[in-house]
Amino acid sequence: MSAYQELERRFARHSQLRDVAAMLHWDTAVMMPPGGAEARAGQLATLDVVAHEILIDPGLAALIEEASDADGLDPWQGANLSEMRRIWGHANAVGSDLVAALSRASSACEMAWRTARQENDFASIIAPAEELLARLRESARARGEKLGLGDYDALLDQYEPGARSAQIDTVLDDLASFLPDFLERVLAHQADQPAPLALEGPFDTGAQKKLCVALMKTLGFDFSRGRLDVSHHPFCGGVPEDVRITTRYDEKDFMPAMMAALHETGHALYEQGLPDRWRHQPVGGARGMGLHESQSLLIEMQACRGREFLSFAAPMIRDAFGADGRAWEADNIYRLGILVKPGMIRVDADEVTYPLHVILRYRLEKAMIAGDLAIKDLPGAWNDAMGEFLGLTPANDAEGCLQDIHWYDGAYGYFPTYTLGALAAAQLFEAAADALAGLGADLARGDFSRLIGWLKANIHAKGSSLTSDELIAAATGRPLDSRAFKRHLETRYLG
Amino acid sequence: MSAYQELERRFARHSQLRDVAAMLHWDTAVMMPPGGAEARAGQLATLDVVAHEILIDPGLAALIEEASDADGLDPWQGANLSEMRRIWGHANAVGSDLVAALSRASSACEMAWRTARQENDFASIIAPAEELLARLRESARARGEKLGLGDYDALLDQYEPGARSAQIDTVLDDLASFLPDFLERVLAHQADQPAPLALEGPFDTGAQKKLCVALMKTLGFDFSRGRLDVSHHPFCGGVPEDVRITTRYDEKDFMPAMMAALHETGHALYEQGLPDRWRHQPVGGARGMGLHESQSLLIEMQACRGREFLSFAAPMIRDAFGADGRAWEADNIYRLGILVKPGMIRVDADEVTYPLHVILRYRLEKAMIAGDLAIKDLPGAWNDAMGEFLGLTPANDAEGCLQDIHWYDGAYGYFPTYTLGALAAAQLFEAAADALAGLGADLARGDFSRLIGWLKANIHAKGSSLTSDELIAAATGRPLDSRAFKRHLETRYLG
Repeated sequence: MSAYQELERRFARHSQLRDVAAMLHWDTAVMMPPGGAEARAGQLATLDVVAHEILIDPGLAALIEEASDADGLDPWQGANLSEMRRIWGHANAVGSDLVAALSRASSACEMAWRTARQENDFASIIAPAEELLARLRESARARGEKLGLGDYDALLDQYEPGARSAQIDTVLDDLASFLPDFLERVLAHQADQPAPLALEGPFDTGAQKKLCVALMKTLGFDFSRGRLDVSHHPFCGGVPEDVRITTRYDEKDFMPAMMAALHETGHALYEQGLPDRWRHQPVGGARGMGLHESQSLLIEMQACRGREFLSFAAPMIRDAFGADGRAWEADNIYRLGILVKPGMIRVDADEVTYPLHVILRYRLEKAMIAGDLAIKDLPGAWNDAMGEFLGLTPANDAEGCLQDIHWYDGAYGYFPTYTLGALAAAQLFEAAADALAGLGADLARGDFSRLIGWLKANIHAKGSSLTSDELIAAATGRPLDSRAFKRHLETRYLG
Repeated sequence: MSAYQELERRFARHSQLRDVAAMLHWDTAVMMPPGGAEARAGQLATLDVVAHEILIDPGLAALIEEASDADGLDPWQGANLSEMRRIWGHANAVGSDLVAALSRASSACEMAWRTARQENDFASIIAPAEELLARLRESARARGEKLGLGDYDALLDQYEPGARSAQIDTVLDDLASFLPDFLERVLAHQADQPAPLALEGPFDTGAQKKLCVALMKTLGFDFSRGRLDVSHHPFCGGVPEDVRITTRYDEKDFMPAMMAALHETGHALYEQGLPDRWRHQPVGGARGMGLHESQSLLIEMQACRGREFLSFAAPMIRDAFGADGRAWEADNIYRLGILVKPGMIRVDADEVTYPLHVILRYRLEKAMIAGDLAIKDLPGAWNDAMGEFLGLTPANDAEGCLQDIHWYDGAYGYFPTYTLGALAAAQLFEAAADALAGLGADLARGDFSRLIGWLKANIHAKGSSLTSDELIAAATGRPLDSRAFKRHLETRYLG
């Protein structure tokens, strides 16, 4: 067996162990009774350590060295070896004890967060969140030293390989200066028009689920290789052959559950479209989280909130709830779906204010990682920033700094990828529409086959064989910028 | 760190990995979409190999050697070390490649069985079942050579450590000669009495589930540390802190689902009552499967099918289905619950005919492992034996040799433990009733606390610190025999 083949064998085992952990993470959020939390934390910590040991085996470095000197690797194998080297670098920055401590702290904090959010009790989360932040800062420092990166960039690099906060600062500062004025114009434009008609509930959750399933099937989600369930925070988990999507239902409003299901379906289609040939190899995995988010936002925001798709979906929505009348016409549903209204909750935010929610979190988490903001001061800092960005003050921490799971399960450095994803979604959708004449008519018929085919060919099936920037440039003809996103916003919200 | 401490560390990791596999097995049976099967087989095979590697590490043998020579181990540590040595012996009989092949063959065959049973298509299961049997026979031979056991005993020893087919032959041949005559007497006794009144359905499955949950709570099942779900074949899975019970509902008859839930609760209480101090060590685990089955049968057959408990449960049952009238009185439900009727399905069989179902399977699986019976000849051999033992001929393989999962997920050698468990259940319940004056009155009030307390003290909390025989002798004053079981049958069915 060549050094390269032995590397493939070891990384395949690593991938299998990560897949097992993914299934347990799904179970933790969807199925597990509360008394199972501590045992689950132990299981996940063990999986983390066992997987980590594969990467820190001293023999691995020698194999990478040897494989790098060998001839005869094809381009995919070469890209696979590069990914192996990158993953090896990250893993060898952090010791096994810290990996286990981080996993334990993350599981404990995540469970505490579920109660804290439900009971609006920030005080109860301070100790576990401080413990988790302390371990994360240790990890960031160790990673940064090894990789020659600042602490925050070292965390960010795990989610979006190659991204750096200096570049992100530029993009997000630009958006932070564009959006407030734009938001005022949108709100004025909206005020000039008659308000869309409200849809009257309650909406049976069983009917909502049926609607979600029907729409997911329209998009091409394969239910023989996945499920739809319920969790506090919607997510896409599981493995490519068995993708586990979640949403959450509100009897007063069916749109959040429906849009969350469509959003997570965008993630799922990426996973289901990855290259089979490279399954369980690093090069066969999805690229960074920003690109992943571009796939969910392309489906949710670009395609499914558009006039064309909603003209197809409106009759299905009416059928689902046995509803009828002017409020249920496609145009009214479209206008409800693009209503802009500054609000407290990121996952319920519209496309225009969403980036402001992200910028707020991005700035706060940079400060926390830098040691400039303590957990106990988070509610105050959060509320100040909400006032500054959106002119709002949360009534409580449940609708403030406790609303998102990310900081409480250790995903610092993840938030900016949402807005990088929004920019990429706009740029990719514009390119797809250029390449596929009549795409709008496809969506108006509920036919996603050409769009998903284009995404699969240009993004999904390429796995991690190129960087996110290279993939976007190859698919759209230019590197990522904000022009398509701004054009999209202007067309949709001022048109 | 001493050799013994290092062994504890390694076996704790092994236990965590087995726990992870247990969660995935539950997911496979309860949640997984069919397209996820192949990926799941890969995950389970990886976990098996990684766990197995802990046991076959050459360093482990040296540590066991060193720890055995050291002084100062307390009795529990000594028992723990003995269990480690036993597990090490089993593991080192079988190579990693065969372990992985067995896991893969087992997952593939189990999935094929789900379809084959549903569609009554034995032909479709022949190839995967032959592959699995071939791998199992290899494993039995390797194990037997290492441990100085015959092939079948080597498989049996995994489920009931120390049990040997020569002893079991004696017990089961004895029962096989007692039961047919006894069965005739019971059927004649039954025929002399007016038949119990039938309970008229249909029975809403939601109402059945509520009833199961209420009864499980009465018995002390802790739903903050467990769940009740649905699968084709009821089982008790998960881990002690998060026990996952399943049952299956039939709208025509609520008794099978209710009795399955109570049976699995008996298993669950054993898991929930294991010694916390020894969690993740071999000595802290449940003893053999026969003893495990004794706990489920003690709850289901000895306690919950008795007059006392049913006098408590009858009003709950009536409430669950909004039912009333003579058929729903406790005495009638009791008589329905002990109706003896030779039938096709083991899991629906009464106490009197159940051992005959087991003996049939025990004899056939011994023949298959010996190479004297091929998979393709199984339906014929099964149907012949059903005629001989119970005077019945299955109408199809779904109610014949496809009814149980065991042979199709690789659990040859498991079946005899059911009847060993039935004998132990009777002997332990008799001893508990002797020790706890007024136990019947407890059960008539739905108060299981003293019974479960006695089982916890005498069985559950002792983990694997003693052998099954020692545990039973310590709890009942004598080794396992069939006297209590026969007394129980005579009292209940001829009384």
